[in-house]
Amino acid sequence: MNAEIIAVGSEMLTPERLDTNSLYLTRELNDLGVEVVTKCVIGDDRERLAGAIRQALSRSDILIVSGGLGPTEDDVTREAAAQALDRKLVFHPEVAEAIEQRFLQANRKMAEVNKRQAFVIEGAAILPNDRGTAPGQWIEESYAFAMLLPGPPHELKAMFERQCLPRLARVVPRQAIRTLFLRVSGMSESDLDTLIAPVYKK
Amino acid sequence: MNAEIIAVGSEMLTPERLDTNSLYLTRELNDLGVEVVTKCVIGDDRERLAGAIRQALSRSDILIVSGGLGPTEDDVTREAAAQALDRKLVFHPEVAEAIEQRFLQANRKMAEVNKRQAFVIEGAAILPNDRGTAPGQWIEESYAFAMLLPGPPHELKAMFERQCLPRLARVVPRQAIRTLFLRVSGMSESDLDTLIAPVYKK
Repeated sequence: MNAEIIAVGSEMLTPERLDTNSLYLTRELNDLGVEVVTKCVIGDDRERLAGAIRQALSRSDILIVSGGLGPTEDDVTREAAAQALDRKLVFHPEVAEAIEQRFLQANRKMAEVNKRQAFVIEGAAILPNDRGTAPGQWIEESYAFAMLLPGPPHELKAMFERQCLPRLARVVPRQAIRTLFLRVSGMSESDLDTLIAPVYKK
Repeated sequence: MNAEIIAVGSEMLTPERLDTNSLYLTRELNDLGVEVVTKCVIGDDRERLAGAIRQALSRSDILIVSGGLGPTEDDVTREAAAQALDRKLVFHPEVAEAIEQRFLQANRKMAEVNKRQAFVIEGAAILPNDRGTAPGQWIEESYAFAMLLPGPPHELKAMFERQCLPRLARVVPRQAIRTLFLRVSGMSESDLDTLIAPVYKK
């Protein structure tokens, strides 16, 4: 099986920032035997993200989207995924309640915008977030699996490890991908290519 | 104007490696007033890369593809770009000659596979590479500009600075994008969003 990773956030399209969640996710996917075939960073643009999600799901078995699940207007992942999948977003009062409880425990009043985080794609499984307010979502289509995960690395890792890996383990055929880096000196790339071509092209 | 960057190479889809050329390219594009709206890493897969190039050109003004211009079988950028643009690849004997000269100067014999690097997309301008063997290519369509640049950072930077920037400067309206990071404490993201919403959504 193969996978694509989309990181959402205009801040990762500046000259200062890179998406590093994908390194963690790639290691975990490779350990399951899943090859990552494309990684993208998309800004906070709903239409563009919806197009990228649609394309990824049309050509790959697994899609992980990280980020864009926060409470603010520029967090567009929920809406973009719903649009790409042609499903509705459904308000879950119990999710809103859990978010409000988190604020109360921290002696804060929840801003109204946080209710945005309680919208879930129709038919998706809710992945509770015990390290932040934004819940994740696990979506199954007949042809692919998709996960929407929060962007902050400590939230993403905990959620992926505890809630996505067990689900993936049930659907992915067991095998593993190992990567070996060989350092070669004294030969140009083209000479090396000529030498190893018979082995390399199996 | 906006831009997309595609980095080509399966090694950048492993858990150990990131594409960092895009940071340099983003800074240079921002200085020209061009916003980077999507970045992707695609493996050495001609069909998948052709699809990504076609999609990028359909929705953005400028496309920069880095990597995959080497001499080996898994260097698929030339073929993928030709396929996406529906143009032929043309063999340029003078490019092959220049590559052979580079090998001779280093007292090496050129492997036959290096001739692959002398294929240029019909109608493209050849961007000579004085730091490596793979020449770059500058392509104009009625609706977009595309550049194929070598992956090694020192080759890419020299080529972009000396040959692409002057060409871009002629076609991009002058303006600049500046990014300002503000560090805020004592307020949640959602409260801050509520506070700055009137300013932020101009």
